[in-house]
Amino acid sequence: MAAQAQSRQPELRKDAVTGRWVVFSPARSKRPSDLKSKSPSGSANESSDNCPFCAGNEHLCAPQIFRVPPDSAAEWRIRVIENLYPALDRNLGRPDGGGESGEVLGGFGYHDVVIEAPAHGVHLSDLPPREVGDVLIAYRKRIEQLAAAFDEIKYVQVFKNHGASAGASLSHSHSQIIALPVVPPNVSTRLGSMKDHFSRTGKCSLCELPLSDLVIEESTHFISFVPFAATFAFEIWIVPKIHSQHFHDIDDEKAADLGRLLKLMLKKISVQLNDPPFNFMIQTSPLHTTASELPYAHWFLQIVPQLSVVGGFELGTGCYINPVFPEDAAKLLREVNVPVQ
Amino acid sequence: MAAQAQSRQPELRKDAVTGRWVVFSPARSKRPSDLKSKSPSGSANESSDNCPFCAGNEHLCAPQIFRVPPDSAAEWRIRVIENLYPALDRNLGRPDGGGESGEVLGGFGYHDVVIEAPAHGVHLSDLPPREVGDVLIAYRKRIEQLAAAFDEIKYVQVFKNHGASAGASLSHSHSQIIALPVVPPNVSTRLGSMKDHFSRTGKCSLCELPLSDLVIEESTHFISFVPFAATFAFEIWIVPKIHSQHFHDIDDEKAADLGRLLKLMLKKISVQLNDPPFNFMIQTSPLHTTASELPYAHWFLQIVPQLSVVGGFELGTGCYINPVFPEDAAKLLREVNVPVQ
Repeated sequence: MAAQAQSRQPELRKDAVTGRWVVFSPARSKRPSDLKSKSPSGSANESSDNCPFCAGNEHLCAPQIFRVPPDSAAEWRIRVIENLYPALDRNLGRPDGGGESGEVLGGFGYHDVVIEAPAHGVHLSDLPPREVGDVLIAYRKRIEQLAAAFDEIKYVQVFKNHGASAGASLSHSHSQIIALPVVPPNVSTRLGSMKDHFSRTGKCSLCELPLSDLVIEESTHFISFVPFAATFAFEIWIVPKIHSQHFHDIDDEKAADLGRLLKLMLKKISVQLNDPPFNFMIQTSPLHTTASELPYAHWFLQIVPQLSVVGGFELGTGCYINPVFPEDAAKLLREVNVPVQ
Repeated sequence: MAAQAQSRQPELRKDAVTGRWVVFSPARSKRPSDLKSKSPSGSANESSDNCPFCAGNEHLCAPQIFRVPPDSAAEWRIRVIENLYPALDRNLGRPDGGGESGEVLGGFGYHDVVIEAPAHGVHLSDLPPREVGDVLIAYRKRIEQLAAAFDEIKYVQVFKNHGASAGASLSHSHSQIIALPVVPPNVSTRLGSMKDHFSRTGKCSLCELPLSDLVIEESTHFISFVPFAATFAFEIWIVPKIHSQHFHDIDDEKAADLGRLLKLMLKKISVQLNDPPFNFMIQTSPLHTTASELPYAHWFLQIVPQLSVVGGFELGTGCYINPVFPEDAAKLLREVNVPVQ
C-alpha cells in the first residue's frame, strides 16, 4: 500500500486530534525519498566569539533562573535564563482586573530560554540520550515553578526552533518556554477535537494505537509515528503510551526514555532530509486543570521539519497541503538506520 | 498615542473578525520604521526564456480556461489556466458518497492559475489601476463558473504569492484559485467569530468603522486599514464600505476602484518595506450561501508582507507575535507617498 505515492490521487484527511483538514497532494512533489531540505541548518563552523549562550559569556545574557547541575563550583551543562527580548513581560501588572475592553490584555507572561549545552555547535541530538532527557527535566522543572507561583498563567508552551528558517535567531542549541495568560487557540481547538472524539467513542484519540504503517519506533514508554493527517511533510509525534494530560507529570525514568527516542527521531530527519531546519513543540494541557476535568487530554511532542514555505492558501484557509502521504514518510523514517547509543 | 512603540509595554489583542489572540511585543523589534525585508522579492532581471507564463510559451502550460480579451486575434492581457501541479484533482470522482470513514475525502477540487500580465517582470502593482481591476474581474468570472457548475464546491480561495519566501515557485506575476469540497477551518472560525459579534452587538464587525489611527486610505467604495489585532507586521485589510458577503458580487466599477486601492497598498508596502515578499488572500463566504443565512458575513482582501518566519511558538499555540503595533504600522503606511495614476 505504501511507496506508491506517484500513482496516488490526492486526498483530504481530517486529524482526530487537531481537527484539521489536510490536503495530501503527491502530484506536487518529487518522490518522497527525494524531498530534502534546500537550506540545511548546519552551523558547525559558525563563530562562537560573541555567542551569549556559550560558556564564559554568561554576562551577555539576561538573568539566570537555574542551572544544571545547581552547584556553581561545577561547570554547567544546562542553563535556564530569561529571554533578553521577551515576547511577554514578567514585570507587568498581572491582568487581574481584566483588559480594558475584553479585547485587550496586558502582555503579562514569561519568556525563558533553555541553553541545552555549554559548547557552541553541539546540537541537542549530539548529546547522549540521558542528557537529552536532562533537558526535558529542565523543562519540567521550569513549568512546575511557573505553575506553583502564578495562578494567572494558563498555558506553558515549550518549543525549539532549529535553523534560521525555522525561527532560530541564534544557532547555539537552545529551546524556549513561553508562559501565557490565555489558553491559546490551537490548544482550545485540539482539546475540543479530542473531547468530541472521546464523547463519540469513549476513547482518548491518542491512547488508540496508530496504524502500524504509520509507526516509526517504539520505546519502553513512548511511541513515535507520523500522524494520519500530518499537517507537514515528515511531521512526527512522540506520544506517551500511558494516558497522561500534562507533560510536566513526566518522571525521570520516562524523561530519559523520551530523550533517547527524541534524539533518534532528530537524527533520522537529519539523515533523511539533509539536516533540515525544524521545530518541536510540547503539546500539553492548560495548567491548573485536573485529569477529571480533561479526561480526553493526552500530551505529546510534535516535531516539524521545515521543508516548504507557507503561502497564501495556508494563510487564507488554515488548510495545509502536504506533498507526502504519512505512510510513505513513516516507511522512509523507519528505514533510516541511525545508531543511537 | 502612536509612534511611541519603544516605550510601550507588550499587549495581547483579540481580533473581532478572526477571533485570534495576537501578542504585540515591541521589545523584539527595532523601531517600526526600520523593519525592512531582508530578502526583497525583486526579480526584474530574471530570465524569461523558459517561463511558461510568458506570452509565446503557452504550449508549456496546462490547458487554458479563458483569456482576456476573449478574442484570440488580439494579444492576451490575462490568462486563466489549469495548474500543471494541482493540489486537488478536477478529474476525481466527486465525493458524492462521502469519504470512506468521515475522516477521509477524495481530493476533488480545482486549482487554477491567473497569469496577470503577458510580459515577464511586470508585476501586478506595475499595471494601470484599471488592469488590476481586470484581474479582480477575472477572479470573479472564474468563481462564478465554479459556483454555477459544481454544488460540491463549498469554498473558493483566491490568493497571490509574491516572492519565493512567500511561496511563489515562479516569479512571473500570477495568482491562484483553489476550489475546495469543504469549508476550510479559518473560514469557519472567522464566520463563527463574526456571528458572535453580531449576536452580541447587532452589528457586522466589518461595517463598524476602524479607529481613525488604523486607517491608511479610503476610496469611493473601499477602506484600507491595519486591523486592530493584526496577526502580522504591516498586515493590511481592504474592506468594502457597503456590507457584502461575497467577493464575487463585485461589479466592474467597484473592481476598478478596488484595483486602484490594491495597487496603492502594494506600492506602499514595496516602498516602506523594501519590496518584501507578500501574500494576499480574498476572505469571502462559502459558495451557495445567502445573505439571510450569513447576515454577519462581510468579505475583505487581506495583504500580508512576509517579514519574519513562523517558529515553534506560532506552530504550537496558533498565537502570533507581532513586533509592530497596528497604529504605528498604519501611520507609516499612511505617510508613504506613492503617486498612483
